[in-house]
Amino acid sequence: MTQTRPCIGVFDSGFGGLTVLREMIRLVPDADYHYFGDTARLPYGSKSAETVSRYAVGAAHFLEQHGAEMLVIACNTASALALDSIRAGVHVPVVGVVEPGADRGADASRDKKVIVVATEATVSSHAYLKALQCRGIEAKEKACPLLVPLVEEGWIDHKITEEVARIYLEEAFSDGFQRADVLVLGCTHYPLIKPLLQRVVPQHVAIVDSAESTAAVVAQKLRVSEPGKEGKPGLQFFATDSVEKFQRLGARFLGQPIEKVQLVKLSE
Amino acid sequence: MTQTRPCIGVFDSGFGGLTVLREMIRLVPDADYHYFGDTARLPYGSKSAETVSRYAVGAAHFLEQHGAEMLVIACNTASALALDSIRAGVHVPVVGVVEPGADRGADASRDKKVIVVATEATVSSHAYLKALQCRGIEAKEKACPLLVPLVEEGWIDHKITEEVARIYLEEAFSDGFQRADVLVLGCTHYPLIKPLLQRVVPQHVAIVDSAESTAAVVAQKLRVSEPGKEGKPGLQFFATDSVEKFQRLGARFLGQPIEKVQLVKLSE
Repeated sequence: MTQTRPCIGVFDSGFGGLTVLREMIRLVPDADYHYFGDTARLPYGSKSAETVSRYAVGAAHFLEQHGAEMLVIACNTASALALDSIRAGVHVPVVGVVEPGADRGADASRDKKVIVVATEATVSSHAYLKALQCRGIEAKEKACPLLVPLVEEGWIDHKITEEVARIYLEEAFSDGFQRADVLVLGCTHYPLIKPLLQRVVPQHVAIVDSAESTAAVVAQKLRVSEPGKEGKPGLQFFATDSVEKFQRLGARFLGQPIEKVQLVKLSE
Repeated sequence: MTQTRPCIGVFDSGFGGLTVLREMIRLVPDADYHYFGDTARLPYGSKSAETVSRYAVGAAHFLEQHGAEMLVIACNTASALALDSIRAGVHVPVVGVVEPGADRGADASRDKKVIVVATEATVSSHAYLKALQCRGIEAKEKACPLLVPLVEEGWIDHKITEEVARIYLEEAFSDGFQRADVLVLGCTHYPLIKPLLQRVVPQHVAIVDSAESTAAVVAQKLRVSEPGKEGKPGLQFFATDSVEKFQRLGARFLGQPIEKVQLVKLSE
């Protein structure tokens, strides 16, 4: 790992991983970031483990070939279903979002009861459940398939989104989990509705955002002693579908305009 | 075209096309149907024309190679964006869903004002707008990106779905289209919420379902004189992702259990 200006590859099925990139830029601005969004094949959240692995390994190869010295799998589904395959397929360190989120969630829970909201595929993998159980936490996972399309529709502070979140979270905070005191956001789209979710969860609940937790782990691995102090990030974006849509939707997730996106074709 | 027992290939990005298949089985039961759902790469509705064309042509080849004598593109997005490419790529007749839906919509409108609801990609293509304008109809297209995930969540008679539909349709039936008297369902997921939509639209509005219209065109092309009279359909299903999920979700769209699904890998 270079001590000077690292090149970090960031991978997601689409735009959600840009919330992780945004946090990394904040903590480690003095770095080059190559972001790869596999937008032609999104969403991964409803696909099988085998398919997600095949797609994710292809993207990881692309980023490694383009100079990444570290890979951040900024996609909960790919981290949950394909992290071992990706690690086996590349020669650089790989950081997923599940372990950092589970670490932070476990630390934050006094009652040792945590709820994780995520996509259907992430929940089916039980990656968060296993990671939290290893840390002595009783965990419950809740799939919230409508939250990603609601965020992508731009309804991030909309009464419908709040009602949908209320339905999902009432189901989650039940059956022995009424006193859960931490909600882990196990999908990189969800940080955009964190203020809305904060209104919906019981007052005693802390929300853990795996984008923030992952960025902190990356900063630590890069041995950045004073996060966010200086430097201007180099940003390159690659997408497998419409670059116009990537720029338009992506800016919402990144929190800043996206100047240029390169269209990439990957063979399966 | 065989006069006895035809083999019809039906293609969709996922499950929605099963509403078209259901109607075809009802009208033409004495046929073999090969249904191909490109579930590994769904949804097409948010992807670019080029990507949709590449995927759809690959699937059309697969169905032709497996004996289809006619192809039904039971996917609005693929019909809107890729019908010419598919026709150029295969040697059998190809029926899309846009033209039959536009025909039926034009016939049903006395005021010559029609609203079409569809996915983002179908709307961006303006395929329905053009098809309806050619038939002397003033048309307005409205993208409703949340309706597909709501149907897939199974919320087909849910107050949230009704509220979302109300928001979309209030926007649609405005700006000179208050008196539109036909709503064309330009997405094969929407027939599942037809009763709900009927409650939301103004009373004078007729709903045209492109699944029904397309099945009628297929029956006509096959010169079936007495639709639905006899025969037992042969059904084969192919999917590019989880066969378990295809069986589970697909049954809702087809209206009957799906016994067996074959997993298929397509190269890009």
